[in-house]
Amino acid sequence: MNSVQFTAETTSNGVVEREFTVGKIPGMLWSPASASDTYAVSDRAPLVLMGHGGGTHKKWPAMTGRAHLLVNGCGFHVACIDAPGHGERPRTAHDEEEIALMLQARAAGEPEGPIVVRYNAHLAERAVPEWHAALDALQQLPEIGTEGPVGYFGLNMGTAIGVPFVAADPRITAAVFGLHWPDALAETAKQITVPIEFMLQWDDEHIPRESGLALFDAFASTEKTLHANTGRHKELPRFESDSAVRFFARHLGGAVTSPA
Amino acid sequence: MNSVQFTAETTSNGVVEREFTVGKIPGMLWSPASASDTYAVSDRAPLVLMGHGGGTHKKWPAMTGRAHLLVNGCGFHVACIDAPGHGERPRTAHDEEEIALMLQARAAGEPEGPIVVRYNAHLAERAVPEWHAALDALQQLPEIGTEGPVGYFGLNMGTAIGVPFVAADPRITAAVFGLHWPDALAETAKQITVPIEFMLQWDDEHIPRESGLALFDAFASTEKTLHANTGRHKELPRFESDSAVRFFARHLGGAVTSPA
Repeated sequence: MNSVQFTAETTSNGVVEREFTVGKIPGMLWSPASASDTYAVSDRAPLVLMGHGGGTHKKWPAMTGRAHLLVNGCGFHVACIDAPGHGERPRTAHDEEEIALMLQARAAGEPEGPIVVRYNAHLAERAVPEWHAALDALQQLPEIGTEGPVGYFGLNMGTAIGVPFVAADPRITAAVFGLHWPDALAETAKQITVPIEFMLQWDDEHIPRESGLALFDAFASTEKTLHANTGRHKELPRFESDSAVRFFARHLGGAVTSPA
Repeated sequence: MNSVQFTAETTSNGVVEREFTVGKIPGMLWSPASASDTYAVSDRAPLVLMGHGGGTHKKWPAMTGRAHLLVNGCGFHVACIDAPGHGERPRTAHDEEEIALMLQARAAGEPEGPIVVRYNAHLAERAVPEWHAALDALQQLPEIGTEGPVGYFGLNMGTAIGVPFVAADPRITAAVFGLHWPDALAETAKQITVPIEFMLQWDDEHIPRESGLALFDAFASTEKTLHANTGRHKELPRFESDSAVRFFARHLGGAVTSPA
């Protein structure tokens, strides 16, 4: 089993940000500052894994922003790894082809959905084993451990990768998903029973409303909440990040200490 | 114009609860405790009007609970009046007939929806002028005034009455609705443009899912959020009250958790 190798550390607004690798996979771990110089079992807290969206990476502002909300609001540890072909990771020839096709469709004003659905499903096949391994390694850290609850938070491509990951990894006990098509995911979503918060945009220009609702409906979870907001695909309101923090506070334990 | 006549006052968990009448309409006003013995302009804060559900009244536990969240969380004033035929108010012969028909349908396992839709629309015709008058009177109080923002929060029958009220009263600048049918409300909802949070139950045994979604869709508001939760009609999760408090904090002003 690969272990977490830390490669850099900074502190920002009371949050310790550590870059790491697990094997060849680079990641970020955000944590509350420890009372001592190094983390110990006494720093143990729930862990939230974040999957980033397509075309972005582990240090994208949305990832950093959500991580800070979760660390400062709940005292959680938060981790994100670069998806295949994203961030610091090389693209394969297949990655380049699919991205070129997606950009062509976008430039031509044609639907991107079929390409995104297909390409994200391919990326998920590569990414899911990486997430299992990253979680194995993160749980070896004294400040995380194997006993605490683990959440998953990923929209867009983070949902395409997260749904098969969460369905296959019983360590994940609550998840926030959204902004994806049901085509490649609904059957797998039917295997998920943990509490879910699901976000969709009511006026999404890429994902038809019925498609988003169908993916929400597919989850077998007895506790699931849909948050649908007016606006286009990229106009998810900022307050939904705060809502996700409260969702994880409810389900992983931890007091929300920040306002809003 | 009728004025607010206070008839009783108690204090509970830091919230001053005052019973009042406006004309013949009885109501409750919940407020943060004032620094002085009587309320003054210095106690001015936003006002949230709450409409109660069918078969309940202004002091129903859900009303008191939400009022305390809004007062303690945001420092708002919160008011609720008894709907026609509810609480301390007499039932007409027509009220008795409609209620009997509804209970018959329920006992027979037949759909209550058509009766509820029709009867609530009738009650709304009686209640909307009362709400306008109650708001007129409440705004004469020094601690409320005519300048501050006003919200409306009503589910079930509180939505049946609230939609035509909010559509007709430009003083209402944000509203929480939900748990009703579109039949008598959708056309009026199209006139509403203020920010909306809308709650529906994904497995509502009375309101078909598509009907709830159609009512949400009807609002003309550019800012609106749907919260759909698993569960039956009466199983709205408690955390949606907290969400409504944050919605009003965002739109009426006021910091959640620190009384103004």
